[in-house]
Amino acid sequence: MLNLQSNSSSRWLSQVDQHLDEILIDHAHCEKKAASTALNLMFAYVENETLCRQMTEIVNEELDHFHQVCDLLKARDIPLRRLKPSSYAGRLKDLVRKEEPQRAVDRLLIASLIEARSCERFDLLRQHVSDPQLAQFYDSLFESEARHHRTYVRLAEDYQSVDVVRQRLQELAEEEARIIEEGDSLPRMHS
Amino acid sequence: MLNLQSNSSSRWLSQVDQHLDEILIDHAHCEKKAASTALNLMFAYVENETLCRQMTEIVNEELDHFHQVCDLLKARDIPLRRLKPSSYAGRLKDLVRKEEPQRAVDRLLIASLIEARSCERFDLLRQHVSDPQLAQFYDSLFESEARHHRTYVRLAEDYQSVDVVRQRLQELAEEEARIIEEGDSLPRMHS
Repeated sequence: MLNLQSNSSSRWLSQVDQHLDEILIDHAHCEKKAASTALNLMFAYVENETLCRQMTEIVNEELDHFHQVCDLLKARDIPLRRLKPSSYAGRLKDLVRKEEPQRAVDRLLIASLIEARSCERFDLLRQHVSDPQLAQFYDSLFESEARHHRTYVRLAEDYQSVDVVRQRLQELAEEEARIIEEGDSLPRMHS
Repeated sequence: MLNLQSNSSSRWLSQVDQHLDEILIDHAHCEKKAASTALNLMFAYVENETLCRQMTEIVNEELDHFHQVCDLLKARDIPLRRLKPSSYAGRLKDLVRKEEPQRAVDRLLIASLIEARSCERFDLLRQHVSDPQLAQFYDSLFESEARHHRTYVRLAEDYQSVDVVRQRLQELAEEEARIIEEGDSLPRMHS
């Protein structure tokens, strides 16, 4: 369903156990970055009305999630602070091809894979964390991330054929799995 | 109320009369840019929780306005297309000082002045345009732009004293009036 080529490892879950505060702060930043990605696509593909409309919905939902993470942080007395991001998103963005329409397809598919990985990790977290409020929160995010994943893949099909998009999605998903496998020493949502 | 140092001229209203389609397209882009400005401030001032919360509200409202302009364009068979922006926002952004906290104050006050100018122009437009649907639309935007103006000014007061902010707002408003007075040959919301 999520088109991912790997499952997250126990290495990541032990990072979560040891640095849950930092994972939560990073999560807030990730929601904000997801909103920013969607808004940037509206600037890049002005003429695509469907894309623009669906992006505004994603922006709204991601900012709503951002608020929810802020509330959780506040309830735990964890101040929101700047955090060095993991290398994950930057490494994925390096895979975007320069020429249109390939560029549009890559940007949309990479956004789709980031949503898919978040979704896969929320699924793990809702089973793993002992705090019931937190487990419930991760559970509530699962569905919307899966939906965003599908939205981005569908939008990519506006720019190239379904077969070409499926082939490219598989290539990018293999790269994504490699990046996730290597991990990051910083404890992050996508480390 | 809006802290502006000038009123829009009849020169601008004649641009509107001659190029209403272009003004509408530019309006859609302006709403999107206003959302982007608010989101960028959330990245720049991560630790300011009040700012982050208020910015998410502004992002949502601006994107809602964007949708409304898109609906109006669609009803008029005007396709949304890329448009060279007027020089207005770029010239205002050149006035932002480099050092904090002055930089924060300037970014917030410039955002406040752009909202104020939009508000002043929506007021003119709701009286000027002959199409009742359009007049009603401009009327509906007036209040939120005035509110955003006040929000930005209030947020600036988190970074410097009320007196210092008021003084800087006056300086920037004088510059803004000069830029608006010079105008732009392109017919735009802020030409």
